[in-house]
Amino acid sequence: MIKIRPVILSGGSGTRLWPLSRKDYPKQFTRLFGEYSLLLHAFDLIDSSNLFVAPLLIGNENHKFFLLDACTRQKNLNATILLEPVGRNTGAAAITTALSEQEENILHLMMPSDHLIREPQAFCAAIRKASQAAQEGAIVAFGIEPEYAETGYGYILPQEQSKDSAVHKIRLFKEKPDSETAQGLIEEGALWNSGIFLYDPKSLLSEARKCAPDYVRLCEASLRNASYDLGCTVLPDLYRQINSISFDHLIMEKTHKAAVVPCAMSWSDIGSWQALWQVGDKDENGNVKRGDCTTLDVKDCYLHSEGATLGVIGIENLAVIATKDAILVAPITRSQDVRTLVALLEKKGIPATAAQKYQMRPWGSHEVMAHENLENGARFQVKHIIVKPSQSLSLQMHQHRTEHWVVVAGTATVECDGKIMRLYENESIFVPRGARHRLSNHGKMDLHVVEVASGDYLGEDDIVRFEDDYGRHKPRIIKFA
Amino acid sequence: MIKIRPVILSGGSGTRLWPLSRKDYPKQFTRLFGEYSLLLHAFDLIDSSNLFVAPLLIGNENHKFFLLDACTRQKNLNATILLEPVGRNTGAAAITTALSEQEENILHLMMPSDHLIREPQAFCAAIRKASQAAQEGAIVAFGIEPEYAETGYGYILPQEQSKDSAVHKIRLFKEKPDSETAQGLIEEGALWNSGIFLYDPKSLLSEARKCAPDYVRLCEASLRNASYDLGCTVLPDLYRQINSISFDHLIMEKTHKAAVVPCAMSWSDIGSWQALWQVGDKDENGNVKRGDCTTLDVKDCYLHSEGATLGVIGIENLAVIATKDAILVAPITRSQDVRTLVALLEKKGIPATAAQKYQMRPWGSHEVMAHENLENGARFQVKHIIVKPSQSLSLQMHQHRTEHWVVVAGTATVECDGKIMRLYENESIFVPRGARHRLSNHGKMDLHVVEVASGDYLGEDDIVRFEDDYGRHKPRIIKFA
Repeated sequence: MIKIRPVILSGGSGTRLWPLSRKDYPKQFTRLFGEYSLLLHAFDLIDSSNLFVAPLLIGNENHKFFLLDACTRQKNLNATILLEPVGRNTGAAAITTALSEQEENILHLMMPSDHLIREPQAFCAAIRKASQAAQEGAIVAFGIEPEYAETGYGYILPQEQSKDSAVHKIRLFKEKPDSETAQGLIEEGALWNSGIFLYDPKSLLSEARKCAPDYVRLCEASLRNASYDLGCTVLPDLYRQINSISFDHLIMEKTHKAAVVPCAMSWSDIGSWQALWQVGDKDENGNVKRGDCTTLDVKDCYLHSEGATLGVIGIENLAVIATKDAILVAPITRSQDVRTLVALLEKKGIPATAAQKYQMRPWGSHEVMAHENLENGARFQVKHIIVKPSQSLSLQMHQHRTEHWVVVAGTATVECDGKIMRLYENESIFVPRGARHRLSNHGKMDLHVVEVASGDYLGEDDIVRFEDDYGRHKPRIIKFA
Repeated sequence: MIKIRPVILSGGSGTRLWPLSRKDYPKQFTRLFGEYSLLLHAFDLIDSSNLFVAPLLIGNENHKFFLLDACTRQKNLNATILLEPVGRNTGAAAITTALSEQEENILHLMMPSDHLIREPQAFCAAIRKASQAAQEGAIVAFGIEPEYAETGYGYILPQEQSKDSAVHKIRLFKEKPDSETAQGLIEEGALWNSGIFLYDPKSLLSEARKCAPDYVRLCEASLRNASYDLGCTVLPDLYRQINSISFDHLIMEKTHKAAVVPCAMSWSDIGSWQALWQVGDKDENGNVKRGDCTTLDVKDCYLHSEGATLGVIGIENLAVIATKDAILVAPITRSQDVRTLVALLEKKGIPATAAQKYQMRPWGSHEVMAHENLENGARFQVKHIIVKPSQSLSLQMHQHRTEHWVVVAGTATVECDGKIMRLYENESIFVPRGARHRLSNHGKMDLHVVEVASGDYLGEDDIVRFEDDYGRHKPRIIKFA
């Protein structure tokens, strides 16, 4: 059997799922279903079958620690990672990953990292059906049997109306039709466009060179000028010049090699709170509840609370989403307007649009638990820092703040102005302003530290790095081979 | 002019304003209007006129530090404080405070601490009108000109229908009528019962001894058996045996000395989110907003957020109240059902019904900023502790936790196993498990400390007190003179 390499797209920003997803913490990394992210769900899917070889990930450079953490620590996957300076839609992702392929006789299965597929076996069966055609040069889309006339999806109309899951030629593509058009398309036998495609990268490139030769040349130049960082391929600023265009517009609507395989599987793009409500497990009143939620006369609502007790009375068809620093209340049917609200918040300069209080770092993670400005101008910030085994923060210095570290679990190795010491559970240390310091975990389990920083300026940019295991103390460019 | 002593009732529990008010933090102490509590508003009201002498406060023993802090630190008021082991309604409060009066030729103005009166001058004018009648033995209620047929209030119908603010005899009292009855009453000239009364305590007691002699005897016995604590009179367990009955039922509906003065002033009992929306300043869409709230197509809502960014789309007539640990979403018109929701939460054992994360103490306050249970069984808690100038925590010891104190503002004096040291801003100290320790503020400004406690048990009851400025280390009973 031919090898298939999953090409996992992690470029989405997902503002429609605010406040859970943020610019710095998009949908595929959030824990929408229990403790598990959609990215990990995607990894599971390709792990569930021997159809696949090691995947290729393409995502935003700002999210590299999320990607690295998911691949290496959480899944121990031998993935290749391409980092984009800015998202350039699925067109650039498909061409660039195809150009980067080193192996012969391989197919690419391009798939978003932030969709939900609940039946891996149906999915793999459809891929098996498609692979023969793909080996023969077809660029095969996967079409989902529509459940209703969704206006937020794209539709694919096969040439012949047939429910069997053979490979069909395509009559037309239609992006986000109105409700009536969608209904008509469904009656004609159209399928939802899942955004998943199977193709031989060589065939794709030969088609792309016909449809859009300049576009391919720009992708090639970008890849030639890429650099390495932490084992990832970092695409250069040149990549920004590529047009942001979807794979459908760039290739599928132009090539004669386009084909579609219908799949009878449960699929959702999880593109809105409404979609999450639709796929969620409902109580007897049609409510989906996550976290500490209590209801009184409440119907058909999506309730999600991270930490706080949520009490709700007498509402219907509303989404109430509470994170530690931001709360959304909106009718489920107005899920699409969340974008507009986020734009309003951005205009106001409200920080909760960009970052979560929880941040990934190459050595682990940290979360701001409290930040207070006192009346007299003093301020302090409390963080929960988790350092993974055998990892170190950089050797660093702050001009404006002192730090106090309390070890609450694990064992810390602390370097402070040249002195090295070990701190065990319930021990603490004081790092004066201006001291060169480094926190490391040489143990076998996660190290948990509570940091209290105080001073007149507490910004993350008050940092001078002297040494760093992750190369963050010097300019990062190393030429791509 | 005769002296008037305000008798301020602070006994309410105010579950209808959950999650802002809690059992341990009722309505009168919450900051419903900016930084100022309703209790402080009540103090301002009696401070605004030379009509009044030092007030008498009666409230729940559990709230004594709130009461003391409001009187002494915030207002420097020379108030007398009576503490009830349990609330026994306005009947017991009126009789017991009347019995405790030591001065001659004085009137009592009994008023709730959790109502809103916006026109102090109209209020004082009405009191002046009433005081002559009160001196002659009348028990004078203050009736508010009704704005609409509210069903949650009590009504007072004067004998003669008259808009003038003279003193009228009373034809009837009606508690919480239905909407139609309320409308009829208003047409007959009835007034809202404000719960404010003016009387000579001697006349009140002589009427009470006629209407309810056993009741008065039980109040007398309670007062005789009271003790002192931190300058407050603490009513004994005997007080629990008194019937919980309102002043209206106990006295007003029975005595021939009942009278009413109509007041044309803006008044609200702030008894629900609906009432708060009614008195609040509205934006052009009828929304009352407190805190960081952003709206898109939102009408006639009450939005209140303490800290988190609240984003709201496409809703009408809803109250959304977000505190750090609990969130309410409910139609404004279903404000009365908040009680039922709170009962549901209590049944589930959810802590956010009882306490706020913010707690008053005799020496200042503390607030839990974070509490985490780690996977390996370790746990930690972070508190922001504020110690007022010249105050000390008790000399104490914990069996199960170590504490780390970081001074973020002010100067701390720390005693730890007999050693005394000073800590300045940005300095920290470690208090091992089992160490006798005490934190004090000998400075002139508030001391702010971040405490990180870690250990396998972090309950507030893991404390052994050796010495305490507030008598909390030994049984508290000192006989009342």
